[in-house]
Amino acid sequence: MESGRRSVSQYEAVGRGSCMTVWIARRDDDEVAGELATASGPLAGLRLAVKDNVDVAGLPTTAACPAYSYDPDSDAAVVSALRAAGAVVVGKTNLDQFATGLVGTRSPYGPVPDSRRPEYISGGSSSGSAVAVARGEADIAIGTDTAGSGRIPAALQGIVGIKPTVGVLSTEGIVPACRSYDCATIFAPDLVLANRAMSAMAAGAPGRTWPADARLAAPPTPTVAVFRELPELDFEWKAAFARTVDDLIARGAWIVEIDPTPFLAAAKLLYDGAIVAERYSAVGEFVDQHPDDVDPTVGGIISSARDLPAHQLVSDVAALERLRADAMTALSGVDALLVPTAPFHPTIAEVEADPVGINSRMGTYTNFCNLFDLCAVAVPAGTAGEAQFGVTVLARAFEDAVALDVAALVAGVESPSVAWPLAAASVVELAVFGAHLRGQPLEHQLNALGARWAGPLATAPRYRLAALDTVPPKPAVTRCPPDEVGVSLAGERWLLSPAALGQFLAALPAPMQLGSVEFDDGTWRTAFGCDGSAAAQGKDISEYGGWRAALEAGAVG
Amino acid sequence: MESGRRSVSQYEAVGRGSCMTVWIARRDDDEVAGELATASGPLAGLRLAVKDNVDVAGLPTTAACPAYSYDPDSDAAVVSALRAAGAVVVGKTNLDQFATGLVGTRSPYGPVPDSRRPEYISGGSSSGSAVAVARGEADIAIGTDTAGSGRIPAALQGIVGIKPTVGVLSTEGIVPACRSYDCATIFAPDLVLANRAMSAMAAGAPGRTWPADARLAAPPTPTVAVFRELPELDFEWKAAFARTVDDLIARGAWIVEIDPTPFLAAAKLLYDGAIVAERYSAVGEFVDQHPDDVDPTVGGIISSARDLPAHQLVSDVAALERLRADAMTALSGVDALLVPTAPFHPTIAEVEADPVGINSRMGTYTNFCNLFDLCAVAVPAGTAGEAQFGVTVLARAFEDAVALDVAALVAGVESPSVAWPLAAASVVELAVFGAHLRGQPLEHQLNALGARWAGPLATAPRYRLAALDTVPPKPAVTRCPPDEVGVSLAGERWLLSPAALGQFLAALPAPMQLGSVEFDDGTWRTAFGCDGSAAAQGKDISEYGGWRAALEAGAVG
Repeated sequence: MESGRRSVSQYEAVGRGSCMTVWIARRDDDEVAGELATASGPLAGLRLAVKDNVDVAGLPTTAACPAYSYDPDSDAAVVSALRAAGAVVVGKTNLDQFATGLVGTRSPYGPVPDSRRPEYISGGSSSGSAVAVARGEADIAIGTDTAGSGRIPAALQGIVGIKPTVGVLSTEGIVPACRSYDCATIFAPDLVLANRAMSAMAAGAPGRTWPADARLAAPPTPTVAVFRELPELDFEWKAAFARTVDDLIARGAWIVEIDPTPFLAAAKLLYDGAIVAERYSAVGEFVDQHPDDVDPTVGGIISSARDLPAHQLVSDVAALERLRADAMTALSGVDALLVPTAPFHPTIAEVEADPVGINSRMGTYTNFCNLFDLCAVAVPAGTAGEAQFGVTVLARAFEDAVALDVAALVAGVESPSVAWPLAAASVVELAVFGAHLRGQPLEHQLNALGARWAGPLATAPRYRLAALDTVPPKPAVTRCPPDEVGVSLAGERWLLSPAALGQFLAALPAPMQLGSVEFDDGTWRTAFGCDGSAAAQGKDISEYGGWRAALEAGAVG
Repeated sequence: MESGRRSVSQYEAVGRGSCMTVWIARRDDDEVAGELATASGPLAGLRLAVKDNVDVAGLPTTAACPAYSYDPDSDAAVVSALRAAGAVVVGKTNLDQFATGLVGTRSPYGPVPDSRRPEYISGGSSSGSAVAVARGEADIAIGTDTAGSGRIPAALQGIVGIKPTVGVLSTEGIVPACRSYDCATIFAPDLVLANRAMSAMAAGAPGRTWPADARLAAPPTPTVAVFRELPELDFEWKAAFARTVDDLIARGAWIVEIDPTPFLAAAKLLYDGAIVAERYSAVGEFVDQHPDDVDPTVGGIISSARDLPAHQLVSDVAALERLRADAMTALSGVDALLVPTAPFHPTIAEVEADPVGINSRMGTYTNFCNLFDLCAVAVPAGTAGEAQFGVTVLARAFEDAVALDVAALVAGVESPSVAWPLAAASVVELAVFGAHLRGQPLEHQLNALGARWAGPLATAPRYRLAALDTVPPKPAVTRCPPDEVGVSLAGERWLLSPAALGQFLAALPAPMQLGSVEFDDGTWRTAFGCDGSAAAQGKDISEYGGWRAALEAGAVG
């Protein structure tokens, strides 16, 4: 950390557009253009901005504190994962110093203004990353999030921010803020692109192991909780939130109101309690030794944590666990929680007049998230007066695919067919041919297990279809003996966790069986079969080529 | 806590045998006898001793500090679970005050002497519970364990101590010592009884949710790690450990030597670092306010934690996580770790001469366990000189059944057919008929998935068995058409996690299928089936009534 220190002046003029404070360092234009022209992979040709508390080899990491600057030898794991997928680093972006803030004004490189109304804040701490995407100076950007830094600026800038479950992405090469609660995030203009980038990060920079029963989808008509009261929101912001909820109901969601008390109480513990000692542990010694080199607000927060006693941290963490238990009880039976992301949009002057108070209020709907081990997706949701308005969909740890699906419903777009957790979680599959097809009477069993529908497929032309005398009606798929001619049968593919497949099998009644079936692309996949003698007693309906066609033709039921 | 305080004198004469310090409070003999005569349930007629930091309604909880004493309104969750299963509480046992110690001498009720050599320590902190079982004054006893309190006294008293994964038993109604690392334990004379008691506790006082891929058994020839060096052990103790390892090898285990460095380094963090602030958080305020009412050694340890800074706790926990990662790497590919439980057996006089030093050395092989989220089973293993010698089998979090099985192998006894985690974890089953029977070529697939063999069973007389032309040879079990007579087929039942069943199915090649099969007791259970046309091409071997009989008759292969 001693080597490679730079002065502010060395970087302060690197901004090239009209906003001088978005970038702390930029790579050479020709170098970037060369890489963009030759990149390959799923993210080929995408310009990537990287928050300057995340290492990029060849550029200094400042964490918005020039005196802290160091020259990393290698890329952070998340950067390396995106580069391996074809993204090209454009530069390093400004932030609230040491990622401590939600405003985007706490930087010696200057406050990052809002992309549309420059007298307003950008939101932080990932201020430069969000504005770079909002201004089209990058296609995607890496942020970090402890208390809301990957969500607040997404909301204020009208873009998407995905904050995964803490730990599922490696934090290697990221300057810690609050070690236990930090995580990397992605910003993108829309959900589809954000999901693509997250897929590359989750596959290339894996962290915490996904559980064997991870849900991989939200049900088609999810149950979404909202807070009974919405503190800090004025009339226009409340109206914007109400419109979003109305739209969500119109798209099929069930809404339940819950008590916000444990959520709001946890938010206060993040800064008012002893948990802030995590920030001292990360950079406190440096801050103490360089009082003139740090932002006075950030320095004040971090230094004040020096003398907090350890036993208070123990009791605060215990209090947090009790609040979390209450919150989990409130969310029981619920797929996701919907909140406004930011409660209002202050001006830079307002923040300068009350830097701690405004910042604290900004975190009302974000602070509790990582403390409660929730994942989140922040999406734009129209406007509140002149401001851009955004909402966040939160879900339990490792239910990132659920949050993504509900966020798509909020945004009114189709959810990505390959949700990013599929790149990291343990996934198996099941092909179905009858009552578990989409829209058929037993589809709900797969939805309840968090299975994700993954499109149609057809067997090799070696099978037979028979209608069984069951309630509800079910077909039997059996393989033809080698000397007989079979047909190709239409089915659908679901992706699910190993535990979901095991539970599904354990509950499966005779005569249905599951085993390996040959498909028309030559693959063998786990699919429905049937006891042979039961199938032999059914009515042969192979000629229809599938259950849906047979139903439509009135051949069964 | 203010109400119900008692003086030491009120309880000091409750011991009724020759050892006056085992019990802090005993219930009325007639009351106990009456309950024993009428108890029902799986633990009916068993006398239960309860460590006096665990609540029993009607008896004070002292935590071995009379001034701290309170009268609980209800039983601790673990007590209530054992009582519901038929166990009868006999009384409350002495302990190292506030469960802070591994020696059994830190109590105003007096040191608890070893059950065989009264000038030696009993081990602690669950001193009275272990000695009550060793002396036959109780059949089973509840202990608690943070740093080894459920294992050290088991070893020194020649009995079994099961220390489950932290959190899988509710800690409701237990005086906290180090909240994040505390758990309830069981003492019993042998593994079978300890396992029965743990089954009742796990079912009746559940805590942390078991993962959907929990292993439910050790493989028949487990891989067991031992430390390359054994500090603190003298020649006789090293020889006793070597004999245990030799026996284990003779019983089929594979032994690998690993570096003990991360394990021993973690042990030091428990008391020398800031983690001891957890003890201050639990009872520090009381200790500060009652300096004359606490054991001087215990009081000194707890009070010294008052001024530890929170940022040091943060960095110690981070250091611990790094050590844990190193330890997990060392244990990769290993089923369990075998260590001597205690490194030596000191006299009471030796401990009194050096209360902190001896205590610290006693925890060499126990301290790291809960810090690394390991589970443990302590079993007797002969003698080391005049002392009883014991070893502990440790396994990863939630691999309690693995630790139990390896401990049975160490003890040279058959492992309980129903391991206690089955009472709490999510379990499904699979009946097999051919290559997955015990001793057959594909049994290893089920062992690798942590499946537990659960005995033979037979189908209803409605099935057929055919020999398929596969490698290795496999049978096809198919149900007869209603108008044909079938046979009852011999099979075997395995219990496994839902994820293991899902993974097994996902890897299952055609023509094998899994589905629901009818058994001779009228139940339908998940079992092997087969694609009908493949089965029809096989050779009918139904007459043998099972694959094993057909193999023995030379009818296949």
